[in-house]
Amino acid sequence: MPYNPRKFYEFRCPVHGFVKLNDWERAIVDHACFQRLRRIRQLAFTEYVYPGATHTRFEHSLGVMHTASRVYEAVCERSQKLLEEELAYDEVGLNRDKQLVRLAALLHDVGHSPFSHASEDLFPMKGNGKRYAHEEYSTAIVRTKLKDVIENHPRNANYGFRADDVAALIEGAATARQALFWRDLISGQMDADRMDYLLRDSHHAGVQYGRFDLNRIISTVVAVREPEAGTLRLGISEGGAHAAERLVLARYEMFTQIYFHKTRVAFDLHLKGALQDILPGGLFPNPADELDQYLDWDDWKVLGELKQGKGGEHGERLKTRNHYREVYHTPESPELKDMERLAAVKNALGLLVASEQSAEKSWYKTGRPDILVESEADDDKVDFLSTHFPTIGSLRSNAQVILYAKPEDAGEARRRKKAMPPQVAKQLNLDMNTGA
Amino acid sequence: MPYNPRKFYEFRCPVHGFVKLNDWERAIVDHACFQRLRRIRQLAFTEYVYPGATHTRFEHSLGVMHTASRVYEAVCERSQKLLEEELAYDEVGLNRDKQLVRLAALLHDVGHSPFSHASEDLFPMKGNGKRYAHEEYSTAIVRTKLKDVIENHPRNANYGFRADDVAALIEGAATARQALFWRDLISGQMDADRMDYLLRDSHHAGVQYGRFDLNRIISTVVAVREPEAGTLRLGISEGGAHAAERLVLARYEMFTQIYFHKTRVAFDLHLKGALQDILPGGLFPNPADELDQYLDWDDWKVLGELKQGKGGEHGERLKTRNHYREVYHTPESPELKDMERLAAVKNALGLLVASEQSAEKSWYKTGRPDILVESEADDDKVDFLSTHFPTIGSLRSNAQVILYAKPEDAGEARRRKKAMPPQVAKQLNLDMNTGA
Amino acid sequence: MPYNPRKFYEFRCPVHGFVKLNDWERAIVDHACFQRLRRIRQLAFTEYVYPGATHTRFEHSLGVMHTASRVYEAVCERSQKLLEEELAYDEVGLNRDKQLVRLAALLHDVGHSPFSHASEDLFPMKGNGKRYAHEEYSTAIVRTKLKDVIENHPRNANYGFRADDVAALIEGAATARQALFWRDLISGQMDADRMDYLLRDSHHAGVQYGRFDLNRIISTVVAVREPEAGTLRLGISEGGAHAAERLVLARYEMFTQIYFHKTRVAFDLHLKGALQDILPGGLFPNPADELDQYLDWDDWKVLGELKQGKGGEHGERLKTRNHYREVYHTPESPELKDMERLAAVKNALGLLVASEQSAEKSWYKTGRPDILVESEADDDKVDFLSTHFPTIGSLRSNAQVILYAKPEDAGEARRRKKAMPPQVAKQLNLDMNTGA
Amino acid sequence: MPYNPRKFYEFRCPVHGFVKLNDWERAIVDHACFQRLRRIRQLAFTEYVYPGATHTRFEHSLGVMHTASRVYEAVCERSQKLLEEELAYDEVGLNRDKQLVRLAALLHDVGHSPFSHASEDLFPMKGNGKRYAHEEYSTAIVRTKLKDVIENHPRNANYGFRADDVAALIEGAATARQALFWRDLISGQMDADRMDYLLRDSHHAGVQYGRFDLNRIISTVVAVREPEAGTLRLGISEGGAHAAERLVLARYEMFTQIYFHKTRVAFDLHLKGALQDILPGGLFPNPADELDQYLDWDDWKVLGELKQGKGGEHGERLKTRNHYREVYHTPESPELKDMERLAAVKNALGLLVASEQSAEKSWYKTGRPDILVESEADDDKVDFLSTHFPTIGSLRSNAQVILYAKPEDAGEARRRKKAMPPQVAKQLNLDMNTGA
Repeated sequence: MPYNPRKFYEFRCPVHGFVKLNDWERAIVDHACFQRLRRIRQLAFTEYVYPGATHTRFEHSLGVMHTASRVYEAVCERSQKLLEEELAYDEVGLNRDKQLVRLAALLHDVGHSPFSHASEDLFPMKGNGKRYAHEEYSTAIVRTKLKDVIENHPRNANYGFRADDVAALIEGAATARQALFWRDLISGQMDADRMDYLLRDSHHAGVQYGRFDLNRIISTVVAVREPEAGTLRLGISEGGAHAAERLVLARYEMFTQIYFHKTRVAFDLHLKGALQDILPGGLFPNPADELDQYLDWDDWKVLGELKQGKGGEHGERLKTRNHYREVYHTPESPELKDMERLAAVKNALGLLVASEQSAEKSWYKTGRPDILVESEADDDKVDFLSTHFPTIGSLRSNAQVILYAKPEDAGEARRRKKAMPPQVAKQLNLDMNTGA
Repeated sequence: MPYNPRKFYEFRCPVHGFVKLNDWERAIVDHACFQRLRRIRQLAFTEYVYPGATHTRFEHSLGVMHTASRVYEAVCERSQKLLEEELAYDEVGLNRDKQLVRLAALLHDVGHSPFSHASEDLFPMKGNGKRYAHEEYSTAIVRTKLKDVIENHPRNANYGFRADDVAALIEGAATARQALFWRDLISGQMDADRMDYLLRDSHHAGVQYGRFDLNRIISTVVAVREPEAGTLRLGISEGGAHAAERLVLARYEMFTQIYFHKTRVAFDLHLKGALQDILPGGLFPNPADELDQYLDWDDWKVLGELKQGKGGEHGERLKTRNHYREVYHTPESPELKDMERLAAVKNALGLLVASEQSAEKSWYKTGRPDILVESEADDDKVDFLSTHFPTIGSLRSNAQVILYAKPEDAGEARRRKKAMPPQVAKQLNLDMNTGA
Repeated sequence: MPYNPRKFYEFRCPVHGFVKLNDWERAIVDHACFQRLRRIRQLAFTEYVYPGATHTRFEHSLGVMHTASRVYEAVCERSQKLLEEELAYDEVGLNRDKQLVRLAALLHDVGHSPFSHASEDLFPMKGNGKRYAHEEYSTAIVRTKLKDVIENHPRNANYGFRADDVAALIEGAATARQALFWRDLISGQMDADRMDYLLRDSHHAGVQYGRFDLNRIISTVVAVREPEAGTLRLGISEGGAHAAERLVLARYEMFTQIYFHKTRVAFDLHLKGALQDILPGGLFPNPADELDQYLDWDDWKVLGELKQGKGGEHGERLKTRNHYREVYHTPESPELKDMERLAAVKNALGLLVASEQSAEKSWYKTGRPDILVESEADDDKVDFLSTHFPTIGSLRSNAQVILYAKPEDAGEARRRKKAMPPQVAKQLNLDMNTGA
Repeated sequence: MPYNPRKFYEFRCPVHGFVKLNDWERAIVDHACFQRLRRIRQLAFTEYVYPGATHTRFEHSLGVMHTASRVYEAVCERSQKLLEEELAYDEVGLNRDKQLVRLAALLHDVGHSPFSHASEDLFPMKGNGKRYAHEEYSTAIVRTKLKDVIENHPRNANYGFRADDVAALIEGAATARQALFWRDLISGQMDADRMDYLLRDSHHAGVQYGRFDLNRIISTVVAVREPEAGTLRLGISEGGAHAAERLVLARYEMFTQIYFHKTRVAFDLHLKGALQDILPGGLFPNPADELDQYLDWDDWKVLGELKQGKGGEHGERLKTRNHYREVYHTPESPELKDMERLAAVKNALGLLVASEQSAEKSWYKTGRPDILVESEADDDKVDFLSTHFPTIGSLRSNAQVILYAKPEDAGEARRRKKAMPPQVAKQLNLDMNTGA
C-alpha cells in the first residue's frame, strides 16, 4: 500500500482540541509499549484529593508531542536566520529535525513505572551506586522494543533516523549541536512536557492554578545566544516575558496546591510502601536485561495485587483511603527558627511520627526557574527572567517538611504538640508582628 | 463533639467548581460502599477512543447531588405557591425534603457494577425472569450497608429519615405525593443525573457536544400541572424552552458521538465477554443475599484479573486494544430498505460477522425526550417540548445496527460487501437524490 | 526596506487565541476603511439585552480570515487529489488562492453600515428597483478605496492580484471555476463568517447556544462533487456530519435566543426609525458615487446625533431604553390557525399595534441549512445533511411574528387581548393535547 | 401591586452566568443614572490594542454586586460566631447589611466619567486644592438622584435605609463598626470590584493573565482580627492563601500586560488631550452643583464630538489611531542607574519627547498588596500574605517610565537614542551577567 504523505490521524484532546499524527507516529502509538501508557496514571492517587484527576500518561504524551511541534514551528518562523547561521540549518534540515523532536517528545515518558513518579524510589541501583531514572527506561525501550517500528517504517526512508537518535535527544546526550539546541524543548524550564502537564492537570483536577497563556508563549518563543557561553538556547522575547513569568508561577502554584498537597503526599508514601511488599525484592526490574518483566508492571497489575491484599499495611490504607494524617508542617520557605521548631516537635512526638516528607525530595520539585529573555530594545542583550522580575527572583525552592502520624495516633500527636512549651511559637508570632 | 450546622466540606469539581457537603453527607461519602465508586469508571473503556475520559462514578455522584440541590432550590423559589397548594408543603417541609433529595441523588448510583453500564448484562435473573437493574443494587445497599450511617447520624435527629425513605425515592416507589414530585429530579428527561453527566463527560473527553446552558435551565425550571392527569411535575417555563431543547439535543449528540461510537461499543462487548469468563458462573452476585460478594467487584479487581489473563479471548482483546472492527452500519434512523440491505449484507458475510450491536439495546438509550413547557402568555397552558419544536418532535430513537468482524476477518468482510450486487445501494442513492 | 516573508503580526482574539497577519494584510487592516470597522458594532443594541455583547465588526473580520484560512488548509490537505483533477490546481495555485481567500474573508464585511444589519433597510435603491446590499458597499470599497493597498503592496508582486479579483470572490461572480469553489467558504452554510460569529457572539454574550466543535469541522471538511450537477463544492465527510449538524443547530438556537429576541428586535426598529430622521433624505449615501459620504457614517457619528436628540421619537427611546413592548407573538413555526389567531389579535388591538415584526424578514435569517455529506463507506455517494438527520430535515425557517405596543399602551393592549373570545385559543390547546 | 419577596430578575453575564436582582435593585438599575453606565466603557480605548475589550461599566457593576454578595454569604457562613461576638450581629442584622452591601457594590462606580479612569485627570478641583475623585461623583449621585428610588421603594420598608447609608459605605466613612467591616469588600485588596474586573477584562480581551480561582477565594474567605489593632477585617484562611496569592499576582500581571500597555497608555493620553479641548474650560462639571451637566457626559457624547473634529490634535489621533510611539522605557522596577539612563535619553531626545508617562501615576496602580491570613494550625495567629510568600513580599509597585514621540518623530528619536554613548547600557549588561 503506497504511503500518502498527507494521511494523518487525530486524537481528541481536552487541552489542545485535536492532536494530529502521521502514519509513522500512529504505528508507534499503536505499539504495545506505548499503549501501556494508557495504564499508567499521570498523577497516581491524586484523584483521592482531586476526584477528577484520573488521567493517564497516554493522553499527556500525545499532548507533549503536539506542544513541542508548535513551539518548534514558532522558533523556526521567528529565528530562522539565527538557526541558519549558528546551526547551519536549511529548510530540509529543519523539517527533518522537527520529525525527530516529535518522536522524542512522544516517547520521553514511555518508560514510566506504574502511577508515574510515585514509585520511582523503587527503581534498582546501577553499578555506580545511583538509582536508575525513568528516562533510562524510556531510552532502553526506544533502543530495543521500538527500534523496529522507528527504523523500518516506510516513512523513515525520507529521514534515515536510528532509534539511537531519538534516545540520544531524550537523554540530552546528542553530540550534534543542532539536536542539542532542541533539548530545551524536551527538558528545560519551558519544555513541552511542563507546558502540557500544567494545562492538563489543571483541566482534569478543575483548578485555575496551572493555567498560563500557551498561545502567547508560542508567539514569542525564540532562539537566543546565552549571555556568557554564547551557545544557542531556547528563550523568550521581551514581549512574552510576562507570559513566561506566568508559566513559572503556574508551576510553583501547582506544586504547592496539588503535587505537594499534604494528603496527596501521604498516598504517595503508602503507594511506595505497598509496592515494596508487592515487587519481588521490593524493587522494579532493571532496564538493562529485565525490560520485558518491567514492562509487565502497570497500574492494572498493581491495582489487582492491592485488591488481593498483597500490599501490606500501606496497601490496606490505599484500598480504604485510610491515610496518614498531617500533624505538623513547616512554612514553605522555612527559616532557621522554623527548623528548630520542627526538631522540637519531632522530639515531643517521638514514635508517633509515622513519616516525615520533605518537598525538597519530591519528584515534582523543579530546578532553578530561569529562562533567557531577549530584549526587544537592543538585539544583543539577553538576560534572565529572574533578573527581570522580583516575583521570579524571589522564588525559593519549596522546602516544606510535613510530619505524619497514623490516623489512630493523630489525636494524641496533636495533643502533645499543643502541650509543648510555647516559647518558640510565641517568639515567632512576635517577630512577624514586628516585621509586618 | 457538638454538631455545627454550618460546618461543611468541599470537593473540587471540574464541572461545578466546588461541591459542598454537610457532615452527614460527608460521613456517607466516607463509607466504604461510597468510596468504592472511586474504583468504578463512569464510561468503561471510552478512554480507548477519547483518551481523557477516565473519570469515575465518585466524581459524578457528587455532581448529581450538587445539581439536584440547585434545581430543588430553583423550583422552590419559583413555584413555592404551587408546592404549597398542591403538595401542602411549608418551608420546614421543603427544607426537609431537600435533604432527602440530596441523599437520593448522592446514592442513586451507589450500586453500579464495575465499569458502570457496560457490565449490566451480567446481572443475575430475578424470580420473575427479569434481570436485576443497577438501581436495585443501589437500593439494597442503601437499605442494609448504609442504614446505620443514614439513620443514626446525629444530624438525622432533625429529620428522622429512614434508609427506606431514601431508597424509595431512588426507586420512584414513594407513596407520598410530595416525594414523588421530586422523582423527576432523580430520573426523568431533565434529571440531575443527566445534567451532570453530559457536562462531565464532555469536559473530560474534550468535546462540545454535551454542553448546554445549565444556568438557564436552573433559572427557568418550574413545577407545572401535567395537561391531562393534572399531577404536579417538573417542567420548564417558556423562556427556558430553548435551553431544554439544547439539553435534549446535547443528549442525542452525545449518544451518537460517544456513547454509541462504533469502537466504544466494541470494547463494551469485549468487556462483557471477558467478564463472562471472569465471574463465577458468568454472572454477578445478586443483591438479595450476596451483597458483600457483589461489593467486592470493582474495576481494580477486574483489571487485575484481566492482567492475569483470566478474561479469555475478549479479555486479551481489551488488554491489547485489538478490538472487533466495524464492517457495516445502517443509518441512525434506518428505513425498511435499510433493514433489507442489512439482511443482505449479513447473508453475504455469514460467519464473518463476529457481533451485531443495535443502538436500541444500548444501555445509554433514552426514552421519549418530552419535557413539559409552561406558556408565559397564558398561565393555564402547559404543553410538550416536542410539540414546541420540530427539532425535538422529529427526534427518533437511534436504531442504528452495526456489524463487526474480527480484525483478521475485516478485510475479507469488506471485500465481500463490495462484491455484493449493487442494486439496493444504487436504488437508495437515487431515492435520496430525488428527495433532496 | 526589504520584505521579510516570515514577518507577521498578531491580534489577540478571545475566540481563536491569536490571529496572525502578514505585512500585506496588516497594511490593509491599517487602512482607514478597515479601521472604521472598529466603530461598527457587530450586534447593534444587543447589549441592551445581553450586556456583554458590545463587540465590533473589526474583531469579527479578523476572525473570519483566520477561520477561512484554517478551513482552506484543511480542504487542501484532505482533498488535494480532487482539487488537482477537477480544478487543475497545483501547489503554487493553492497557495496563491489561499491568499486571495484570506483577503476576501477579511474584507467581505468592510462595507457594513453603522450597527451592522440593523440599518440596512435604509440603503438606497438601485436602478433596478432593488435596494443595495452591504456586500455591494464592500466590493465598491475594495475596488476603489483599497485598490492601491491591494494591488501595489510589494508582496503582491508574487501574486499579481487585482482588487477586482478580491471583489469578485466576495460577490460570488468570479468566472474562474477555481475561485468559485472557494465561494462556499465566504458565503454558504459552512462559511467562515458564520463559524466565527456564532462562537464570538456566544463568547461575549455569555451563552452556550452558539458553541459548536470548530476543531471537528476543520478536521472533516472536504471537497465533494454535488450529486446532480457534479460540480465541486465544500462538504463534510461522514465522520463530521454530527459536528455539521451541531453547527446548523447552533445557528438555529442563536437566532431564536439572541438575533430574534423580542427586545433586541424592538431596538432594531427604534434604530431604523431614528436613522430615518438622522440620515439626509432618510437613506444612506449610495456606493456608486457617494462612497466618501457613506464611509463617514459609523457608530460614533450616529451615537453623537442620538445624543443631540436628532433621532426623533425612536432615538429618544434608544437613549432611554424605553422600547416598544411585545404584546403578542405567534409560535416560531406558525400554522394556519396561528396566523388566523394573529389576524384576530391585530384586529382587536387596532391602532395599539405600534409595530409588527416577522422573523422571515429579519436580516439574520438563513437559507436552507443544507450541507453536502460524503459517505465514508462508499466514495461515490454524497447526500444532504437534511436527509441524514431528522433534526435538520425538520428545521423550518423561523416565521414567528411579534406584535409590539408602545410602553404606555402595553397594559391596554394586553387587556384587550385577554378579553378576546377564547375559542381559537382553546381549540389550539385541545389540538396540542390530542397530538401529544 | 403587592411585592413578591421571591420575585427576581436576571442578567446574562459572561463571567458569572447570571446575575440575579430583586425588584428594588432592578428599579435602581432601570434608573437613568445607572443606565448611563451602558454608555461608559470599562477600559477606554483598550480595544485599540485588544479588540475584544469593548465592555462597559454596566456589566461590571452588576458583576461586583454579585461577587460582593457571594463573599458576604461566605463570610457569614464561616465566621458567624466572630461576627456575633465582635460586631453584635444577629441573623436579622446580617441579612439587613447584606442588602446594604449589595447596593453599595452596585453603585460604587455610578459616578464614573466617560471612558472610566482615563478622563479622571479632568475632574475639577475642590476647595482644598485636591481634585474630585470618581467616588465623590458616585456618592453625590446616590445622595441626590437616586435618593428617591433607594429610600421610597416598597421593599425598603423592611430596612429603612437612607441613601446616606449607601453613600457612607462607598466612602468608607460609615461610623458604625459593623458596616465598616464590610468596607473591605467594596474597597480593599480582596474587594469584589477587583475580583470582578480581573475576570471580566480577561474574558473580553481574551487573555489568561487575570484569571484566578474565585471559587476557592469564596470558600476560604473569613473574618479575622488584625494582629495589632485587633479590629475585625476581611481575611483568608490558610487553605486559601495560595488562591489569594494568585489574585494578587493576577492583578499585577494585568497591570503590566493590559492596563499599562504602552500603546494603551498612549490612547489614554490622547483621550485626555482631546477632552481638554472638548470640555468647556477643559474640566468636567463638579459634583456639588453641576451634577446634571456632569451626567450628560458619556461615551456617546464624547464620540460624537470627536467625530465632529472637536478633539483637536489628540482627537484626530484617536479617530485615526495614529498614536504616539514608545521610543524608550525603563524596566518595571527601575534602579538608580536606570533612572540615570532615562535622564540621559531624555536629554538626547530633547523636544522629540512628546510625552512621558509613569506607571506610578497610573489610575490602575494598586496599593500594597497585603491580605490577612489566618493560620489553620493556631487560631490566634494572623499574619500577612506578604510574609507568607516571597512572591508577594517581593512585589514592588510598578514604576516603569515610558517616553513617547509623535509618529513622525519616532524614527529620528530612535536614531538619536542609538547614537548615544553606550557606556550606561554596557555597564548595565555586565552587571546583569555577573549577577546571574
